[in-house]
Amino acid sequence: MEIRTIKADSGQLRPKPDQSNLAFGDIFTDHMFMMDYETGKGWFDPRIVPYGDFCIDPAAMAIHYGQEIFEGLKAYRSKDDHIYLFRPEENLKRFNRSASRLCMPNVDIGFFLECMKQFIRTDKDWIPQNDGTSLYIRPAMIATEAHLGVRPSNKYLCFIILCPVGAYYKEGLDPVTIYVEDKYVRASIGGTGEAKVAGNYAASLLAAEKAKEKGFTQVLWLDAAERKYIEEVGTMNMFFVIDDEVVAAPLTGSVLPGITRDSVIQLVKDWGIKVSERSLSIDEVINAAENGSLKEAFGTGTAAVISPVGQM
Amino acid sequence: MEIRTIKADSGQLRPKPDQSNLAFGDIFTDHMFMMDYETGKGWFDPRIVPYGDFCIDPAAMAIHYGQEIFEGLKAYRSKDDHIYLFRPEENLKRFNRSASRLCMPNVDIGFFLECMKQFIRTDKDWIPQNDGTSLYIRPAMIATEAHLGVRPSNKYLCFIILCPVGAYYKEGLDPVTIYVEDKYVRASIGGTGEAKVAGNYAASLLAAEKAKEKGFTQVLWLDAAERKYIEEVGTMNMFFVIDDEVVAAPLTGSVLPGITRDSVIQLVKDWGIKVSERSLSIDEVINAAENGSLKEAFGTGTAAVISPVGQM
Repeated sequence: MEIRTIKADSGQLRPKPDQSNLAFGDIFTDHMFMMDYETGKGWFDPRIVPYGDFCIDPAAMAIHYGQEIFEGLKAYRSKDDHIYLFRPEENLKRFNRSASRLCMPNVDIGFFLECMKQFIRTDKDWIPQNDGTSLYIRPAMIATEAHLGVRPSNKYLCFIILCPVGAYYKEGLDPVTIYVEDKYVRASIGGTGEAKVAGNYAASLLAAEKAKEKGFTQVLWLDAAERKYIEEVGTMNMFFVIDDEVVAAPLTGSVLPGITRDSVIQLVKDWGIKVSERSLSIDEVINAAENGSLKEAFGTGTAAVISPVGQM
Repeated sequence: MEIRTIKADSGQLRPKPDQSNLAFGDIFTDHMFMMDYETGKGWFDPRIVPYGDFCIDPAAMAIHYGQEIFEGLKAYRSKDDHIYLFRPEENLKRFNRSASRLCMPNVDIGFFLECMKQFIRTDKDWIPQNDGTSLYIRPAMIATEAHLGVRPSNKYLCFIILCPVGAYYKEGLDPVTIYVEDKYVRASIGGTGEAKVAGNYAASLLAAEKAKEKGFTQVLWLDAAERKYIEEVGTMNMFFVIDDEVVAAPLTGSVLPGITRDSVIQLVKDWGIKVSERSLSIDEVINAAENGSLKEAFGTGTAAVISPVGQM
């Protein structure tokens, strides 16, 4: 398939932000990528067009029944002006797994990656170069068929938008504080916790607001069945260093299989340090903190990068 | 607040369907109701306008993080041409509870009901009168702020669309067949199961497709912790008549508090029949079916009305 490009005219170009003071997620580039899907026809009309509002039917199934998935990855500009993507195939594989979980069509990973690269090249002047900055890439897919009745949609829109970003947390790379949630639940085994679906994030907001009121940055979720085992922090996977063991929650179905998580596990293994993906109860963490064997706690995520945890 | 009305011109009027052959959820009326919200400003510009596409930013938080709720209720036209709503305040109270669960603003129930009534009057010619038909009313609220970062949106759109409908299930009022799901989970205690949020429905699709392949109409969900107790059927609450007791799953947090469910419980009580809202294991239902004490099973819902279950 050929990728159509309609360049933004001078009136549609958007002001570029100050690189030294970038927040996260409010500034978008000049263009967006879109392609459409219909059952029986497959994906069609991949196109790079000026950034602007979507027209969607008020009955579009995405906004009633939540058939919406997304990914998050980053492009970096090196000192010598090359552009690097961090393990994009892994994000696109997860995109397809999320799609399958919600009965949405998969994309051709090779083709979609080519679309993404061509789109990033179109808006390459937006990739910041300062330390701690990057171009955040947000692929997403939403159900667009106008129908009120619960079943998979027959029409979808897949799109990508780009955001020059700084640190995700207001703390930057300073330690974040985390509230251990024991009332609300993010996901249960058999649910959608391991997929990157919109509904997971909506479900997490109330606990996050409660945590914020108490002065904490993020929420640490425990398992749905026993409220005992550590799962993840909505925007990050968690690691705990206890004695000489690095422990991450196992991928049992309710935790997002993070790509930064996977990279950290590989790297730590390569460094010859013991890494375990195993059930870790909040009591074990508390005991380790009390007896001094808890040496570090940190979270990993594309947006969150590697964020040390200062307080729980 | 005054409700602005922009009537559809003759070119925007939509063809009315054949009342004797109405499906569910594909045909919408000439107008829609909309009102906007901004933090610090509250709700503003309530308006009835011609039905048409929304313009939403590709970064609108609804389509990334699932801050989307809805309701479903019905208007009926009587033989003597009066229009009746079925317990609309109950739906609007639940709308506000769903909103609160997802950190979205509440609406003023009295004002919103007035908006709904004025809107229905505007499109009253669309209310069908044939037996088994009604006007399905779909209020919804979505997060519209353009921001990539997980937190509650500061902007929302609340809207209502209307659908002349027939039976929700292809079976009409004939018995539906139900598949008891023991792998996937709809909701867990501490999750969003008792709220009418978009993500709940997306999470249910895969199990529903599996059930459909096996020849069943709907999925009966069991509890997340033990996969043992009956919860609900995504589009319906469930009732079982065992000996002389009518049993409904209790509202423990993971089941939608259905308004038809509530009406059925009240009516059955008024008829002097024993009703219990209590935990009911799938084993108890199987045993009751085997020993002949299971007399009836049916589901209740606004869309599903009261649907007998023929096979599980």
